[in-house]
Amino acid sequence: MINFQTSPDRYKHWQLNIDGPVAQLSMDVQEDQTLAEGYKLKLNSYDLGVDIELADVIQRLRFEHPEVRAVVLTSLKPRIFCAGANIYMLGTSSHAFKVNFCKFTNETRCAIEDDSKHSGRRYIAALNGTASGGGYELAIACDEIYLVDDGNSAVSLPEVPLLGVLPGTGGLTRLVDKRKIRRDRADVFSTLAEGLKGKRAKEWGLIDDSFPTSKFQEEVDARVEKVVSLRSGEVQDGSGIKLGPLQFESTNHTREYKYVGVKLHREKRYADLTIHGPEADLPSAPDEIEKLGDSYWPLRAYRELDDMLLHLRVNEPEIGLICLRTEGVIDNVIGVDQTLAANRDHWLIREIVLHMARVLRRLDLTAKSFFAIIEPGSCFAGNLLELALASDRSYMLNDTDSSLKIKPLEIVVSELNAGALPMSNGLTRLQSRFFAEPETIRYIFEVDRSFNTDDAEEIGLITFAPDDLDWEDEIRVAIEERTSLSPDALTGMEASLRFAGPESMDTKIFGRLTAWQNWIFQRPNAIGPQGALTNYGKPTQAQFDYKRT
Amino acid sequence: MINFQTSPDRYKHWQLNIDGPVAQLSMDVQEDQTLAEGYKLKLNSYDLGVDIELADVIQRLRFEHPEVRAVVLTSLKPRIFCAGANIYMLGTSSHAFKVNFCKFTNETRCAIEDDSKHSGRRYIAALNGTASGGGYELAIACDEIYLVDDGNSAVSLPEVPLLGVLPGTGGLTRLVDKRKIRRDRADVFSTLAEGLKGKRAKEWGLIDDSFPTSKFQEEVDARVEKVVSLRSGEVQDGSGIKLGPLQFESTNHTREYKYVGVKLHREKRYADLTIHGPEADLPSAPDEIEKLGDSYWPLRAYRELDDMLLHLRVNEPEIGLICLRTEGVIDNVIGVDQTLAANRDHWLIREIVLHMARVLRRLDLTAKSFFAIIEPGSCFAGNLLELALASDRSYMLNDTDSSLKIKPLEIVVSELNAGALPMSNGLTRLQSRFFAEPETIRYIFEVDRSFNTDDAEEIGLITFAPDDLDWEDEIRVAIEERTSLSPDALTGMEASLRFAGPESMDTKIFGRLTAWQNWIFQRPNAIGPQGALTNYGKPTQAQFDYKRT
Repeated sequence: MINFQTSPDRYKHWQLNIDGPVAQLSMDVQEDQTLAEGYKLKLNSYDLGVDIELADVIQRLRFEHPEVRAVVLTSLKPRIFCAGANIYMLGTSSHAFKVNFCKFTNETRCAIEDDSKHSGRRYIAALNGTASGGGYELAIACDEIYLVDDGNSAVSLPEVPLLGVLPGTGGLTRLVDKRKIRRDRADVFSTLAEGLKGKRAKEWGLIDDSFPTSKFQEEVDARVEKVVSLRSGEVQDGSGIKLGPLQFESTNHTREYKYVGVKLHREKRYADLTIHGPEADLPSAPDEIEKLGDSYWPLRAYRELDDMLLHLRVNEPEIGLICLRTEGVIDNVIGVDQTLAANRDHWLIREIVLHMARVLRRLDLTAKSFFAIIEPGSCFAGNLLELALASDRSYMLNDTDSSLKIKPLEIVVSELNAGALPMSNGLTRLQSRFFAEPETIRYIFEVDRSFNTDDAEEIGLITFAPDDLDWEDEIRVAIEERTSLSPDALTGMEASLRFAGPESMDTKIFGRLTAWQNWIFQRPNAIGPQGALTNYGKPTQAQFDYKRT
Repeated sequence: MINFQTSPDRYKHWQLNIDGPVAQLSMDVQEDQTLAEGYKLKLNSYDLGVDIELADVIQRLRFEHPEVRAVVLTSLKPRIFCAGANIYMLGTSSHAFKVNFCKFTNETRCAIEDDSKHSGRRYIAALNGTASGGGYELAIACDEIYLVDDGNSAVSLPEVPLLGVLPGTGGLTRLVDKRKIRRDRADVFSTLAEGLKGKRAKEWGLIDDSFPTSKFQEEVDARVEKVVSLRSGEVQDGSGIKLGPLQFESTNHTREYKYVGVKLHREKRYADLTIHGPEADLPSAPDEIEKLGDSYWPLRAYRELDDMLLHLRVNEPEIGLICLRTEGVIDNVIGVDQTLAANRDHWLIREIVLHMARVLRRLDLTAKSFFAIIEPGSCFAGNLLELALASDRSYMLNDTDSSLKIKPLEIVVSELNAGALPMSNGLTRLQSRFFAEPETIRYIFEVDRSFNTDDAEEIGLITFAPDDLDWEDEIRVAIEERTSLSPDALTGMEASLRFAGPESMDTKIFGRLTAWQNWIFQRPNAIGPQGALTNYGKPTQAQFDYKRT
């Protein structure tokens, strides 16, 4: 079982040194400390374990070190920055693992860019040696790239010529969409195993500058100093909060964190995932929230949800459907959202909301079906309503005409549904849902923010509203039908239907580039006995079937 | 060998009846008239042969029948409009054929939408019976959809539940992006084998209306009449021009049309494709051009290029690289472009330019590498310059310092490079190329429109400029290197690098949706011995590996 939780005291592959506003994050991969058997992480190549640490350190910088304004990514290995994803690891991994590995590393690169864009930290790749493949892809996720000019060090994307696969951790998309490399130069660069060195790499826009070995450190330092002085007002001074470990209890078919729990029905291929809403009387002042730290509900619950999603993706591949439920008090959720919305300028609140947005995007990008199940006692309100909007379908019990004298079931929107938690394509989930009728969104915010089942169905906030008599059967049949379908067809279908409207660099990476890479990851030319990935490093040569598809 | 040329007198599967401004296009697939052995085209299901006729009729409507304002797509089979792509054909086709088949059918659907958008013809799907799978995908390529309400007829996308593959002829993308079906409803619809009938199909936006059998014809007629009367001023009255067959001579390794020729180097896996520019003194007045008809160079040369691209895609799969050359007089090309630009309001000129744009988009979407080879005697100017801009790379001989007293090699832009020939994503190829520096485009148009090799290299219009001494070796090595690479990795790389910047519904279909479908088309869950596509119609049941990827 792969564990996505880590912390600095357990890092094997990265060193983080913080000196006031500057963090130096140095890659020093321990070649024997692999996540699986059968390969060595030579030359700062990485496996999922290395990237789990990277994702952790980027997350911690935001919460634990808000004073950091510049992050310098470099390597402790001489003459090598990073050789990219380990090829022997890829060659010996299952198709599903490769796909999940690439998705996670892509999300980590996007998290770097999210930090840069929204939290004002500047990422500087100080390439003290060659950055190839995923190593260069890590560099282009940074804001600035400096390469040592030692007559030897280069940047390269050698996947196509050496391995017969793509630079699939966003590499091709970032070349032309982020760094805006001319497409013919991107073509040449991506087919050139040895890559390009300083002068031409700069001329083509692949790096921002290169400096001789003797001046490299000095020049990078000067650049960092400039970045820091330009951003003196932008990032929070003072200390952050500590992200403690997420405790959970588990059995063979359950995993229970404090607010998030799952019950697996493996033989039926689905899981019930429940998120418990916040307690009453949470603080509303940022300084009190800082004191609560990582136990504050929006941070704790979404960190738990994130860890759960990653766990389910990688460790429970046969679970094809997740039924999402919430339990709690709607007013408490709305209260939290009001606090978050009112204090979005406070560094910690900003980070908490940005984190919630990232977790919800992780859900959008998870290759499992999601059904939201909206029942009495649930709290699909505000930020938790996003779970229903992110789901492929929602079922809400119709108790509107109930003769019982209880308050009818409701779903409720809050300010946070209006833009704080965007999808990867830049739309809110309400914009995505009401793509055909944007005026409905205004109605929802301006006229009525809470909806009983009848109203929710009529306005289109839910998919189905079975009544008490039909409820159990309808849910059961829906689950049985969904889990009987081809898991591959569902993955492709969901990846298409979830993202109507505009595309962004992120969605191009997760849609176009990833889909092509997944295709290639199955082709005999890559993974067959004569394939390039299989034969890498062996005395035998790859043999291609040259038919173009 | 598959032949992409056809004409009305040879149609087997479609009947075209033109009555003034209304064309009725009726599907009546002959089940034994298949393109290959091993399947029957029952229930108006289609194979590539059926779609080649559809593409032809849509093209001819634009050129031969400009008076047509409304096209009614219907079926001559009782109770069935179209059952979609034939499953047994898909089940017995190679992976590469399936991919090429889907690409061509997607291009045909896009051609319907191109006609509607740019030429003002309205396409009305009159579903006199069930439209399932590709049948419904054909309907949603139309502007309006009417379904008979006979208690039985439905629209459906049963690919996911029945076949374990996607509605990949644009279906999923058009659901949420074109018809803007709510994503959860799209999810339900796409997993419902039996589809939806009149009332609910209309409520969900899948059709525009439904009418009882007794009133169906009358209601459709009324709608058509309305369309025609609304558009009385928009489309050309009077007669069109005839599109004659494209003659060519071929040997085992050559194919020579009038203006376009290819020489295949099969053992080296590349082809030399040459386009000959226009003659001098072509007419510049639209009425004279109408008299020239299909022999007018821009129409003839681009129709030949289109046929050649389709031929190379499907019949020459091992050709991985196409070296594009032009031969002719630059002034003649520029002269043609001036004529086209000056008369774009004339119906025929408009159609000719729109056709050129479609052919160039076909090239952008062709899964082969393209190198433009710019040598003395070439005419990469205006519309033909697009071939160089569409190429993955360009090589231009550097003769700028030649002591020979000949005019140096040049490339030249024209008005047509400024927007008349857009890529699928809406950008011009110059915008795509200079995505990082849009100001260069203004310089190109305003300051200098012709570039010798030095200038072209400096401003960035070409990739490489070897001189006479290096030229042959450099081209030879570039060809050898390119054709040694994994054809799959190149296809994925080119699909990513060619489309920087915005995405449109078309690019989402060809990028995201197609790439996922191609992935699924290789999965054992679809095509393995127990796969759903393999087992369709057999007494055996599909067996899935339920691991999610």
